[in-house]
Amino acid sequence: MRRCLKCSAKSVVYLPQHRLALCKEHYLEWYLKRVEDTIKEFRMFDRTNRVLVAVSGGKDSLSLWDALLSLGYKMDGLYINLGIGHYSELSRKVCEEFAKSKKAVLHTVELEKDMASIPSLKEMEKRPVCSLCGQIKRYYLNRYARELGYEVIATGHNLDDETATLFSNTLSWQLEYLKRQYPVLSEGNGFVRKVKPLFKMSEKENALYAFLRGINFVEEECPFAEGASSVEYKRLLSQIEEKSPGTKLRFYTEFIRRVHPILKQEGGVPIGACSVCGEPTTSDVCSVCRLKARLSLGSSSSSPSS
Amino acid sequence: MRRCLKCSAKSVVYLPQHRLALCKEHYLEWYLKRVEDTIKEFRMFDRTNRVLVAVSGGKDSLSLWDALLSLGYKMDGLYINLGIGHYSELSRKVCEEFAKSKKAVLHTVELEKDMASIPSLKEMEKRPVCSLCGQIKRYYLNRYARELGYEVIATGHNLDDETATLFSNTLSWQLEYLKRQYPVLSEGNGFVRKVKPLFKMSEKENALYAFLRGINFVEEECPFAEGASSVEYKRLLSQIEEKSPGTKLRFYTEFIRRVHPILKQEGGVPIGACSVCGEPTTSDVCSVCRLKARLSLGSSSSSPSS
Repeated sequence: MRRCLKCSAKSVVYLPQHRLALCKEHYLEWYLKRVEDTIKEFRMFDRTNRVLVAVSGGKDSLSLWDALLSLGYKMDGLYINLGIGHYSELSRKVCEEFAKSKKAVLHTVELEKDMASIPSLKEMEKRPVCSLCGQIKRYYLNRYARELGYEVIATGHNLDDETATLFSNTLSWQLEYLKRQYPVLSEGNGFVRKVKPLFKMSEKENALYAFLRGINFVEEECPFAEGASSVEYKRLLSQIEEKSPGTKLRFYTEFIRRVHPILKQEGGVPIGACSVCGEPTTSDVCSVCRLKARLSLGSSSSSPSS
Repeated sequence: MRRCLKCSAKSVVYLPQHRLALCKEHYLEWYLKRVEDTIKEFRMFDRTNRVLVAVSGGKDSLSLWDALLSLGYKMDGLYINLGIGHYSELSRKVCEEFAKSKKAVLHTVELEKDMASIPSLKEMEKRPVCSLCGQIKRYYLNRYARELGYEVIATGHNLDDETATLFSNTLSWQLEYLKRQYPVLSEGNGFVRKVKPLFKMSEKENALYAFLRGINFVEEECPFAEGASSVEYKRLLSQIEEKSPGTKLRFYTEFIRRVHPILKQEGGVPIGACSVCGEPTTSDVCSVCRLKARLSLGSSSSSPSS
């Protein structure tokens, strides 16, 4: 049995990519320090900023919220109810309970009220539902964060998410997407600053943090995620990681260190405001308003409830 | 059963990434045209150039030699005897027989005479043997091509080789290696021009060409290749290819179309001449001469026999 590297107590975890065994206390300490260091390294925000964390009810976003509150950051939550039956109901309940236990503010957006639920949209759209859903979540997150006066949006994207996306964008060399693959996306042009403080933490590391902190999170995956290419890419990258621990972290950090600065120099697509809702877009009408038009719902909107 | 798209005869192959079924005659025609188009697209060489093809005895290099002779190019072969027991003996025999049947010139380099066999070098070196062997082959290929007056070196690297290498260099974002990943490496600084006319052809497509042309090739893999990371990467990429035919080709061609031009602008490492053998190198003494020094064999060299 491995002993904690810090105190020689019985370890609860061994992190092969860091060659590190830790007990419960020192794992939590290590995790918080790593999150804090990431926030500082990329100047994501400080303790004066109003930060909105996007919570889904899963291990990543709730660990992020918990960790940032523990570190003394001002942090409210936003839950987008996607209307995916039991899964969404359970997720909402878990987020509400977490917020209550922390005496924290949780805003909620009802997608069904504002346009339509994801299952209805899935029927209408041909493209993969994960791509559609991601686009919608980004839209509402940005819009409500700005309307509610938040300076920063924090999301729980972990190392596995980020490397799967990086891999996907690399396979097709989507330079516009690759250019946006960075732990901080600056504010401006109608965008609120977006940060990913957990980008160095693996899924397993977040799950262990949530478990050791006694956080109640939704363990089931979104029922629509099955068969998604991101799931397949995660599986492939995990095969490599198992043989060569540290590959994922190096893949991502070397990209942002060596390649991102080069891509950033290349000209980008100009951003304007959607002529219907005013949200930032590269077209005249943004993709969500185009979706709404197809739903024949016009562009009437609801306000988030808190 | 699928019918040939060109003549409706019984097809011998279906190429999912091209959605193309072809009979024997039209497959061979398609293959030769694709090789010829690649040579022209990248201005690799023309019928006035003296070209040296690096042959290993495998399906790729012998298909390349056969295809280029069929297309009317001037093409001699170079076989490097790596001294890997039965495998090398068989490979040499197959290359010699092919050359004889085509009345073509085959040069041979005896690695053991000039420095040491790959099995001996493997014992001495800690790094992966495939990387060591690749370096040695590139060295001798360039040196003998230049000494023998060839203007171009053609190698049988196929799409599976190239995408596995691209994937490996992408995982660690080795910009210097990525910059050199292109189907044509120009002559200059002591380097003979190097081209890869089969970079768009998959392993299977080359194997089928060799089979349909009745080429006798060595089917066994190099005994040292087992467990190599390139083999692992080929396996992973093939899993993706199977689900999404065309992914490999797009991964490589989009890289050279979109990313390579950007990387090319970045400054490179200066190339000088090795102070021992005169071959191009980024150091004072090239890596092969450093290896030789460690073997205490000095830098005496043999000439290729033909």
